[in-house]
Amino acid sequence: MKLPKGFLASGVRAGIRKKRPDLALLVAEKGANAAALFTKNRFQAAPVILGRRDLARSRGRVRAVVVNAGCANAVTGKPGLDAARRVRNCAAALLGFPKEEVIVSSTGVIGVVLPDAKIRAALPDAKWRLSPSGLDAASHAILTTDVGPKVAQASFAWMGRRGRVVGVAKGAGMIHPNMATMLVFVMTDVPATPAYLKTALRGAADVSFHLVSVDGDTSTNDTVLLMASGALGGPELAAVDDGPEFRKALAEVCRTLAWKMVRDGEGATRVLDLTVTGARTETEAKAAAHAVATSLLVKTALHGGDPNWGRILAAVGRSGARFSEKRVSLRLGPLTLVKDGSPAPYREKDAVRIFRRERVKVVVDLGAGTATASKLSSDLGHDYVSLNADYRS
Amino acid sequence: MKLPKGFLASGVRAGIRKKRPDLALLVAEKGANAAALFTKNRFQAAPVILGRRDLARSRGRVRAVVVNAGCANAVTGKPGLDAARRVRNCAAALLGFPKEEVIVSSTGVIGVVLPDAKIRAALPDAKWRLSPSGLDAASHAILTTDVGPKVAQASFAWMGRRGRVVGVAKGAGMIHPNMATMLVFVMTDVPATPAYLKTALRGAADVSFHLVSVDGDTSTNDTVLLMASGALGGPELAAVDDGPEFRKALAEVCRTLAWKMVRDGEGATRVLDLTVTGARTETEAKAAAHAVATSLLVKTALHGGDPNWGRILAAVGRSGARFSEKRVSLRLGPLTLVKDGSPAPYREKDAVRIFRRERVKVVVDLGAGTATASKLSSDLGHDYVSLNADYRS
Repeated sequence: MKLPKGFLASGVRAGIRKKRPDLALLVAEKGANAAALFTKNRFQAAPVILGRRDLARSRGRVRAVVVNAGCANAVTGKPGLDAARRVRNCAAALLGFPKEEVIVSSTGVIGVVLPDAKIRAALPDAKWRLSPSGLDAASHAILTTDVGPKVAQASFAWMGRRGRVVGVAKGAGMIHPNMATMLVFVMTDVPATPAYLKTALRGAADVSFHLVSVDGDTSTNDTVLLMASGALGGPELAAVDDGPEFRKALAEVCRTLAWKMVRDGEGATRVLDLTVTGARTETEAKAAAHAVATSLLVKTALHGGDPNWGRILAAVGRSGARFSEKRVSLRLGPLTLVKDGSPAPYREKDAVRIFRRERVKVVVDLGAGTATASKLSSDLGHDYVSLNADYRS
Repeated sequence: MKLPKGFLASGVRAGIRKKRPDLALLVAEKGANAAALFTKNRFQAAPVILGRRDLARSRGRVRAVVVNAGCANAVTGKPGLDAARRVRNCAAALLGFPKEEVIVSSTGVIGVVLPDAKIRAALPDAKWRLSPSGLDAASHAILTTDVGPKVAQASFAWMGRRGRVVGVAKGAGMIHPNMATMLVFVMTDVPATPAYLKTALRGAADVSFHLVSVDGDTSTNDTVLLMASGALGGPELAAVDDGPEFRKALAEVCRTLAWKMVRDGEGATRVLDLTVTGARTETEAKAAAHAVATSLLVKTALHGGDPNWGRILAAVGRSGARFSEKRVSLRLGPLTLVKDGSPAPYREKDAVRIFRRERVKVVVDLGAGTATASKLSSDLGHDYVSLNADYRS
């Protein structure tokens, strides 16, 4: 997939992971305005601490992003922060960019200081390989236990031209709302102010990454970075309502990436597309959706293709949402399985057929109000256990 | 294991489960004072609704408990409540006890109305087999996916005699604090008022069942019932401070049962014995312990015997507990793995050895206050997935 105008990328081996590419470089040739969402975990990895500071210092200008897999450089104290800084400084010197316009991003094992010498040694190769068609190589170099690379694109109309939004993500394991070991880099050629980008990114994340739940853990390294090169020309998007076409394309790219992350969740074979309606408050709707999306019993039933709605309702029942069980209904695709708190007549084989689709749509109505919430969740199978009992993340 | 004086038990086949005993009967020959803790799930199974009402109506008197496995009779509306009532009334008539002194308890599939005719047909056999040594048969008849039966006993000094506390439990799957598909029946021969029993039971549950976490789901049917026959003679325990020896024995029985439930959690091979210290408030300590105990990544690392403390800290970090990461420490058994937010020097092979024990003790100190919380959690392995992807609970 080609990058939007103004961007170059590459992916190489730095030797942190065994025999796999593990270092990606993204460059905005003439710089980009940028906005980011970082993890809310109390433990912030060194690259997150550094990136947050630098982005504030540069007032939202970014020239390059250095991403490594294999080591999260989290819970590593000052040695970790120093290592991240050395990578940043080395890349800045090599590329001739101001330090604070170089963002470092890491994913992998927690508690190990970044082997920055390996990365610094590989950076010249990464620079040499930079190309407008380097996204595929970069998309592979940021993966850990992901099944495959995740990229997405969309285009939009802009002053009589076609603008583009292109995103790349790393997302298996620990994926969860409010961000989780999720690294997402989205690039566009539209001109826009950092403040506008921040608002647009928040809006897009709300309908994409924040709906995602693979295993309930949020990581120390989560980062979603949006960069706009402005290479398309024209006036900058600045007011909140500006560029609805751009925002639509951005949301589409984020939604596709979120879907791919759930679909490629470690060992996932099936995705639960859950909506809770009729809650008293949005908080309660979210709590109910969260309880179902993270329930191990629901996730294993999903894996087994068993439309065991009792487990879904039991999760809703313990979520803290207030409702009368006599007013609850549950729909699986077009089938009503529960109405007014009692099992509805349906054919088991119809329910099984729908529950074995790649995407399983379930709507739980609490009958207690008007608030709603949605969530995407993957199933939990043997591959998840195998990956996570053996892999160090 | 022999029952305390005043109790009889039996276990038979009613035909709800295929080829396995699935109906247990417990009888207090001359009645018992009783107290119960029921699930806090919004969906209360029919037997829970009925039991709660009857216990209030009888002012804490119980003569018999009818327990079936294979069908939870939850989310079954009025038909389910009627079926539970028919079982209760049939048992009451057969045994010659007042209806409200017969408790019905169920575990198994949700959303299916109890096949009460099968149970009623098997009740005469269950009555015929009642015996002071019937606990073993009963302990088998209440199981679903449990690896094996769970019983525990303890004795205590009472007015120059030996009193006894004997408990039986069913606990695999959905085990979680605030109760989960957990059926526990504890019997003692000490005389005590229902109010005293309630307080004593709450105290014992706080240091046992409420510490347990297998998979984060709480069920529609959870019940812990404590019955005191008074056959030992003497004055009734009534004031909160009465009978410290009895309360100690009760706590011991509950702790043993809780431990057995976690140890026999579906597919469990290892137990995490977690304590969070140094939290600002008890709520935050509990939130942090809960986040770790229910983290899929922690549970799979435990299964793999991988002392991946990064996953433990990442879970603490997203729990909502407030602390400075620079003051956090983590101990694994006698080893300090993290100190002041940075990895401490230790030998990996020592950590691995300790992490592969049957019981793994971890203490996370947040360095932010004085509040503490504990939790027991099982690992998550392939057997869990196999059991729950295929079994309907």
